[in-house]
Amino acid sequence: MDRDGPRIKLRLEYDAPLVLGPGKAQLLRLIGQHGSISAAGRQMGMSYKRAWSLVEEMNAAFAAPLVDSNRGGAGGGGATVTPTGQAVLHHYESLERLLRDKGAADLAAIGALMKTEEP
Amino acid sequence: MDRDGPRIKLRLEYDAPLVLGPGKAQLLRLIGQHGSISAAGRQMGMSYKRAWSLVEEMNAAFAAPLVDSNRGGAGGGGATVTPTGQAVLHHYESLERLLRDKGAADLAAIGALMKTEEP
Repeated sequence: MDRDGPRIKLRLEYDAPLVLGPGKAQLLRLIGQHGSISAAGRQMGMSYKRAWSLVEEMNAAFAAPLVDSNRGGAGGGGATVTPTGQAVLHHYESLERLLRDKGAADLAAIGALMKTEEP
Repeated sequence: MDRDGPRIKLRLEYDAPLVLGPGKAQLLRLIGQHGSISAAGRQMGMSYKRAWSLVEEMNAAFAAPLVDSNRGGAGGGGATVTPTGQAVLHHYESLERLLRDKGAADLAAIGALMKTEEP
């Protein structure tokens, strides 16, 4: 939770049975950083099973997989974010940035109407 | 579910314990149209108790209430969306419109990478 404004949860529900939200976006981001689904999930406090299931859900919804992985392979299950995965993450982040930048006035206007915390 | 693109679920989580998402926005919109919390909730398939609880949650989070109501009054519990409520709804809808308009290219790019349904 940042103090600079609201946490924006942008969920895109496509006709395909996929909801793309901040959780999956963060998982993709961390898989790219760690090269590992389990390390990415661990950092988000989720089980390997849960992280794997989210990856499978994303891979199934796109024409090409977003994450390539060697599940339980000899190398210990390394994973990479594919070019398609990078593109999806790029566009999702671009939409979040659009809200934060061009939507700043509307976000601030709602915030200004809210009750301020009593000290 | 529209066929023109993804359903956008924009959830704003402010530091105050409020999540402002499509459900509460639609409830506000319908209360404004029907002048009644129960009628608005009914149209969304929710119980009066649930609709009332969402209204209370919103009213508690803002400096001024978003909905004025005569709960169970002689008039049968009419409700109006206050100027504050109208302002919140306006800014929320403006953010949704921003995503749909200025975000159209990113939304379409993600959609284009998705698996197309087999006929």
